[in-house]
Amino acid sequence: MGKPTRFKQKKKHYVLPEPGTTPGFVYIDANSLTPKISLYSFNTDDFKVVELANLKNISEKTADKSTFYWVDIRGLNSAEMFTVFSDELKIHKLVLEDITRTYHRPKFEEYEGYNFAISRMLNIAEDGGLDNEQVSFIQTKNVLYTFQENYEDCLDAVRKRLKDGKGNIRISGTGYLMYALMDMIVDSYFSILSKWSEDLDAIEDKLLARPDRSVMYETQMLKRNLISLRRVIWPERDKMNDILRTESDLITDQTKMFIKDAYDHCIQLMDMLESMKEIASTNIDMYLSIISNRMNEIMKVLTIISSIFIPLTFIAGIYGMNFAKQDPVTGKIMPGNMPELYQEHGYEYTLFVMALIAVVQIIFFWRKGWFK
Amino acid sequence: MGKPTRFKQKKKHYVLPEPGTTPGFVYIDANSLTPKISLYSFNTDDFKVVELANLKNISEKTADKSTFYWVDIRGLNSAEMFTVFSDELKIHKLVLEDITRTYHRPKFEEYEGYNFAISRMLNIAEDGGLDNEQVSFIQTKNVLYTFQENYEDCLDAVRKRLKDGKGNIRISGTGYLMYALMDMIVDSYFSILSKWSEDLDAIEDKLLARPDRSVMYETQMLKRNLISLRRVIWPERDKMNDILRTESDLITDQTKMFIKDAYDHCIQLMDMLESMKEIASTNIDMYLSIISNRMNEIMKVLTIISSIFIPLTFIAGIYGMNFAKQDPVTGKIMPGNMPELYQEHGYEYTLFVMALIAVVQIIFFWRKGWFK
Amino acid sequence: MGKPTRFKQKKKHYVLPEPGTTPGFVYIDANSLTPKISLYSFNTDDFKVVELANLKNISEKTADKSTFYWVDIRGLNSAEMFTVFSDELKIHKLVLEDITRTYHRPKFEEYEGYNFAISRMLNIAEDGGLDNEQVSFIQTKNVLYTFQENYEDCLDAVRKRLKDGKGNIRISGTGYLMYALMDMIVDSYFSILSKWSEDLDAIEDKLLARPDRSVMYETQMLKRNLISLRRVIWPERDKMNDILRTESDLITDQTKMFIKDAYDHCIQLMDMLESMKEIASTNIDMYLSIISNRMNEIMKVLTIISSIFIPLTFIAGIYGMNFAKQDPVTGKIMPGNMPELYQEHGYEYTLFVMALIAVVQIIFFWRKGWFK
Amino acid sequence: MGKPTRFKQKKKHYVLPEPGTTPGFVYIDANSLTPKISLYSFNTDDFKVVELANLKNISEKTADKSTFYWVDIRGLNSAEMFTVFSDELKIHKLVLEDITRTYHRPKFEEYEGYNFAISRMLNIAEDGGLDNEQVSFIQTKNVLYTFQENYEDCLDAVRKRLKDGKGNIRISGTGYLMYALMDMIVDSYFSILSKWSEDLDAIEDKLLARPDRSVMYETQMLKRNLISLRRVIWPERDKMNDILRTESDLITDQTKMFIKDAYDHCIQLMDMLESMKEIASTNIDMYLSIISNRMNEIMKVLTIISSIFIPLTFIAGIYGMNFAKQDPVTGKIMPGNMPELYQEHGYEYTLFVMALIAVVQIIFFWRKGWFK
Amino acid sequence: MGKPTRFKQKKKHYVLPEPGTTPGFVYIDANSLTPKISLYSFNTDDFKVVELANLKNISEKTADKSTFYWVDIRGLNSAEMFTVFSDELKIHKLVLEDITRTYHRPKFEEYEGYNFAISRMLNIAEDGGLDNEQVSFIQTKNVLYTFQENYEDCLDAVRKRLKDGKGNIRISGTGYLMYALMDMIVDSYFSILSKWSEDLDAIEDKLLARPDRSVMYETQMLKRNLISLRRVIWPERDKMNDILRTESDLITDQTKMFIKDAYDHCIQLMDMLESMKEIASTNIDMYLSIISNRMNEIMKVLTIISSIFIPLTFIAGIYGMNFAKQDPVTGKIMPGNMPELYQEHGYEYTLFVMALIAVVQIIFFWRKGWFK
Repeated sequence: MGKPTRFKQKKKHYVLPEPGTTPGFVYIDANSLTPKISLYSFNTDDFKVVELANLKNISEKTADKSTFYWVDIRGLNSAEMFTVFSDELKIHKLVLEDITRTYHRPKFEEYEGYNFAISRMLNIAEDGGLDNEQVSFIQTKNVLYTFQENYEDCLDAVRKRLKDGKGNIRISGTGYLMYALMDMIVDSYFSILSKWSEDLDAIEDKLLARPDRSVMYETQMLKRNLISLRRVIWPERDKMNDILRTESDLITDQTKMFIKDAYDHCIQLMDMLESMKEIASTNIDMYLSIISNRMNEIMKVLTIISSIFIPLTFIAGIYGMNFAKQDPVTGKIMPGNMPELYQEHGYEYTLFVMALIAVVQIIFFWRKGWFK
Repeated sequence: MGKPTRFKQKKKHYVLPEPGTTPGFVYIDANSLTPKISLYSFNTDDFKVVELANLKNISEKTADKSTFYWVDIRGLNSAEMFTVFSDELKIHKLVLEDITRTYHRPKFEEYEGYNFAISRMLNIAEDGGLDNEQVSFIQTKNVLYTFQENYEDCLDAVRKRLKDGKGNIRISGTGYLMYALMDMIVDSYFSILSKWSEDLDAIEDKLLARPDRSVMYETQMLKRNLISLRRVIWPERDKMNDILRTESDLITDQTKMFIKDAYDHCIQLMDMLESMKEIASTNIDMYLSIISNRMNEIMKVLTIISSIFIPLTFIAGIYGMNFAKQDPVTGKIMPGNMPELYQEHGYEYTLFVMALIAVVQIIFFWRKGWFK
Repeated sequence: MGKPTRFKQKKKHYVLPEPGTTPGFVYIDANSLTPKISLYSFNTDDFKVVELANLKNISEKTADKSTFYWVDIRGLNSAEMFTVFSDELKIHKLVLEDITRTYHRPKFEEYEGYNFAISRMLNIAEDGGLDNEQVSFIQTKNVLYTFQENYEDCLDAVRKRLKDGKGNIRISGTGYLMYALMDMIVDSYFSILSKWSEDLDAIEDKLLARPDRSVMYETQMLKRNLISLRRVIWPERDKMNDILRTESDLITDQTKMFIKDAYDHCIQLMDMLESMKEIASTNIDMYLSIISNRMNEIMKVLTIISSIFIPLTFIAGIYGMNFAKQDPVTGKIMPGNMPELYQEHGYEYTLFVMALIAVVQIIFFWRKGWFK
Repeated sequence: MGKPTRFKQKKKHYVLPEPGTTPGFVYIDANSLTPKISLYSFNTDDFKVVELANLKNISEKTADKSTFYWVDIRGLNSAEMFTVFSDELKIHKLVLEDITRTYHRPKFEEYEGYNFAISRMLNIAEDGGLDNEQVSFIQTKNVLYTFQENYEDCLDAVRKRLKDGKGNIRISGTGYLMYALMDMIVDSYFSILSKWSEDLDAIEDKLLARPDRSVMYETQMLKRNLISLRRVIWPERDKMNDILRTESDLITDQTKMFIKDAYDHCIQLMDMLESMKEIASTNIDMYLSIISNRMNEIMKVLTIISSIFIPLTFIAGIYGMNFAKQDPVTGKIMPGNMPELYQEHGYEYTLFVMALIAVVQIIFFWRKGWFK
Repeated sequence: MGKPTRFKQKKKHYVLPEPGTTPGFVYIDANSLTPKISLYSFNTDDFKVVELANLKNISEKTADKSTFYWVDIRGLNSAEMFTVFSDELKIHKLVLEDITRTYHRPKFEEYEGYNFAISRMLNIAEDGGLDNEQVSFIQTKNVLYTFQENYEDCLDAVRKRLKDGKGNIRISGTGYLMYALMDMIVDSYFSILSKWSEDLDAIEDKLLARPDRSVMYETQMLKRNLISLRRVIWPERDKMNDILRTESDLITDQTKMFIKDAYDHCIQLMDMLESMKEIASTNIDMYLSIISNRMNEIMKVLTIISSIFIPLTFIAGIYGMNFAKQDPVTGKIMPGNMPELYQEHGYEYTLFVMALIAVVQIIFFWRKGWFK
């Protein structure tokens, strides 16, 4: 019976803007989390993290030109916070709207004095579906602002590298930091695909061993997941490409070499994904052919047994008839009207004829290859 | 039995131009509505609406260079009105023909001194299909003319914003106003897709719980609706792109940033739509596999019962035969020619053999996994 | 049984050039019609039509620079006529070959001093297929030559407009006249699609009401027709695009605006056509699922009836057996070996057991949902 | 049963280069034919053919600048011949390798002082498959070398035109001659498609009249042939396009006009081919639906007959049972326990009930539409 | 039953980077092999091979500008070795990461002073799947470094050509050597496709002779293999194209001519591969139609036999009924209530009627064409 419960996944339903809302309207979702704000300041030598209660005077706090800053914001439920962005930092209100409407595709846009980017952080949910969170980036010369919906994320490794000062991360500016975070997110897609690849293997094992209808449900669920993931990876690749081609001086050539690497990863992901989709389709074909074959097998059993015994039963029926002689004088009825019945060895002859018919049919079916 | 009535939708049949009509012929549909004309004049400080009986001297009424005007025309049944456009405003007659032939795809075209654009306003009809209305735009430096087929529309929110003076709408010129109206229409597509997404969920629930043939009808109707919508969204996206790339000075760079946002929305719509189409196809595959599985189940029941009882009935038939001895002398016929019948416990032995045959077959089918 | 006769359409088999024919060889099909030639001369004020017997001295007849000429040639069976074109008018022989080989795709080509174009004039034939005729155009500064295979065509409306002097047609030169003719032909495609759209509706009605195999035949025929039409519309669109991008001064910018309109029509046609193709495929899926469902229904009836009655018949068979006692002394055979048979109410008990079995099975099938 | 033998075609298995062979290695296939070499010299006035034993001093023999030469080589089995090309004529060894490895796609390449091109000459083989021969061209200013695998070809018409001096062929140089040969080969594709189009018609006739499984085999074979042909036509079109865009002065503008014509032919071929492929797929769908319909018909017959007679047989079985009374005193067994049996007209009543059941069922099936 | 074991192939599971790993981290797989390093030095006259224990001072060892060097590294398990590359040779750490993460797609990248490329070496594994090894290239002016995972490879033929000094290989520099190795790898794909083409032929033979479900398994396995191979060939082609378009002076124009040849090979491979995929799909269609046809055949046998014998058995059942007369006086029961039974020749008439029914049905089925 499979586990059809796995097929149906709960979905995150985004709150669509009320039609007619002013474009650039900053939407505060009442169910979203209150922001936790961490301010990382770092350069080659120093590293410091401060938790902020709010963003007031953030320009002053990030004014030191010899230091890079990362303002790590988790939770979007603060209209006041976005006022700082629009009024103090002069961020375009369409950007702020995109940050608060958390259903956007990955993209990269250049604005006067800053870049804006969106990534999507994915997780395999408990019910086998995909959790899908938006991560937004505002990158200026020496400050990177990131926005997440939830407190948990998969970016701790980058925070650790930043703290430990490993690699280029402290000295290569906000562009490289943004890259490092995006790359982390893309890397997590590999784990997801790798998990699904195992699921696909498991489905195939089942297909060979004992195919039941759960094969269909699970393959369909996998295909749906792949369709969802593809909707993220394609624009992710386009985003990387846009970053590669940007002439913004906020992205150094050094960083672009790394972006090229992330771009290659996206292509590799698409490659794996498309192959998995093709193989999943192939499995469905296989499953359908297995069903058809089973049908044939069932029908063969029915046909063989019916074809052999129905005629025999007919013969038995013949000799079970009660035809009789009626004495024309007395009107008395006596057996005797079916000569075969009273022949010596009539019974044995009949059994022999029946056996003969059965054998002929078995040979016929054998030669048709129905016993294979 | 599903609700096949939902599958068949009434369609709007457009009146095609008589082949050979002069190109640029302004077609007045006798069934269309008489125009209601509202003239909005607005700038940063002022806002005024006047209802006009006709368009006479419209150039004079919209002559103030410090004010923007919106001529909101609903209903197209007035040849005289179009004469004003062709004679007084020098609008190209192909443009006027496109406005009156209300089956055009979304597009954007530049002309000497004005821009021309078409959007399509959609609504889910009572029968589950799509209502489809053409909205045309003629945009000059400080006047925007819009043309609709019906009196009702989904643009009241923009009218309210205009009146309330919220956002950029009063100060950003006719380009921004045109954008605001178009964006409104695109936003309404999201509601439509969102509604259909719920339908798709409902179909899936049914597919898991009690799939019947209505699954097929409803999925097909959904697919047809998606095909219709795609025919609108693709050219809509191209239109937005054409506006983005136009060098017309009637569209400011400021407005283009908003157009870029609407362009992104179109892509997102296409994305959602294509995913829904793929999932709908996936559901059809699933439904067909469910039908095949059911068939297998039905055939299994038939085969198991027939295969067990047909041979048993044959055996019963055998011992129901009337083979008899005939006294060669008296010619008298007496039972006695089928030795098994008169054996002690013959009946019990026979019953036992029958039970044995049944048990063997049940084990055979069990091992084939037919009882699962 | 549908109308399979509609599925098979007679086809026009073109005479392919004998392989190895000299390129540029002007082929005169013996079965083609003798040319009827009309010479239209027109300018803003004048309009005149003359029937010509042949094309001799055509250069002189069309020498007046203040007048435009249309040489309307219907029927291609005249080698002499093509000699005039090659010798007197210096038309490239590949052009003449293309005119006489009437199986070419729509195209537009520029030559030294003239343009060459091909359109395809379509008609729904009696048997439901497509009649397909080639119309060729040679356009010089002030003369337009058109070539058709048959005498009848769908261009009379243009001739009338020319005569009546309505619209631009008399004053806009040969480019506009060529456009008007081509546009006429494209317009006629709309009527064809509109007819097929009604056929598609009719097929759907049948699909819902009483689907039989004619659904399949008719859908296939429709798909084939759509495939044929697509082969015409795609290159037609490319042709329009080529005209739009030409730098030939024989096509004025004024005319190009009209060509753009015809280009839009082609795109709209392709749009409609692709949607219809998708819907036709969708109908085939639907029909196949209906067949499968029917199969299920048939099998359910068989299975229910067989499963109920076959076991009952077996029981009846049991008690129809003739097991008997044989007196060990006299060898006399007497009934009495099947105790149930002689029990009081044995018959009634048996009938009751049979009814019980039937009821249990009916409940079983009921719960499986087979009676729905 | 169709003619499955037609489905399986013998294939030409090319000898792949031993991996690791030096690039540019001239491979001499031991099974290939010894070359027959003809040297055509021609100009406006003269025409001469000489058979050559080998290519020694070919530069001298083709030195006259006022004459064009065609060196027509059929058979590739001569290492010595290729030495002349590499040493005396300085042809790049990769070119020579391509000539001897006869499995290359059509292509056109420019080299210092000469052009190199490949065409593929096709023939419908005896078994219904495609014979596939490589024709290679080396074109210098006034010499054209052609290489074929076999002695027979489809180019005699060109040789004749050359001899007769018809058309441009003697005066337009080696580029035009190469075009003429290539065009000939492309023309022969039309005959092939035309033959297959007739096959497709024949399949369709069969599909309507008496579809059996040969429909499937023949359609599949046709599809495979179309796939093979597509592999030739696509690169052929690209080749033509490459020639059109070449800046080599070995191809005159005059010749390019003819090449454009051949390019159009390739597009037309692709068009026809894709349509035929779509129609073939359509036929397979149709065939599968016919099989399903037949299945339904078969099952209907079975179900109607079984459903009617199985219950009737059960009733007959009931009254064939031997329930009896046993005298409690004598233990004597007498008939008499099944009251219906001894009722007057019991037999007739039973027959009537049976008839009633049959009639009710027939009405039931009739109303389900199973007799149609 | 086929050989389902062939369907399931073991897969190489790559170790994905731990998410959050520093980009450019050189990963040393503990299971990889310790490097074997061979240093080839060669020019027109000399050729020398030295086995090196490690890469220390490799710059000095390869310092002679008049000599080319090939550093052939097999086995990647040496962190120290990669330190030489990063510190002494200043290779970008992303390049080194790509070399150690052996799951990259073929690519070509230019860096300051060197080029980097990846090829994938394929082998048909024992279980019918594809073994897949990464070969990386770092090419400087006069040194080529290659990196492989395993000791065995398919490149010995190139080593031999290098030693023997055949062809261009000693004099054309590192670019040509890199080409020669890459070309070798591409050539090996031809052998793989050629092997699979034979498998496809074998499957087809089986399809015609005795199709069983192994056809399905084997075709699916083949399709999966083709999908895997396509994932290698497409980027391989792109790589070749990137090399063709590079402006790096490390790749000479002379070498590019050979690269063009390899590029053509890639296209040819893709061509063959896509055709094989199409044919494989075609075979699945065919197999499914064969299953359906078989089903029809099975059902026909069942239907013919059941339809003939079930009614006959019913008739026999009728005359096996025990209707009797009961003497109203004595209550004695005597046969006699079924007049047909006592008619003279009643039995023979009945047999005749049965035969008649059978014959009528056989004629009916015959005319339906069920015996064909």
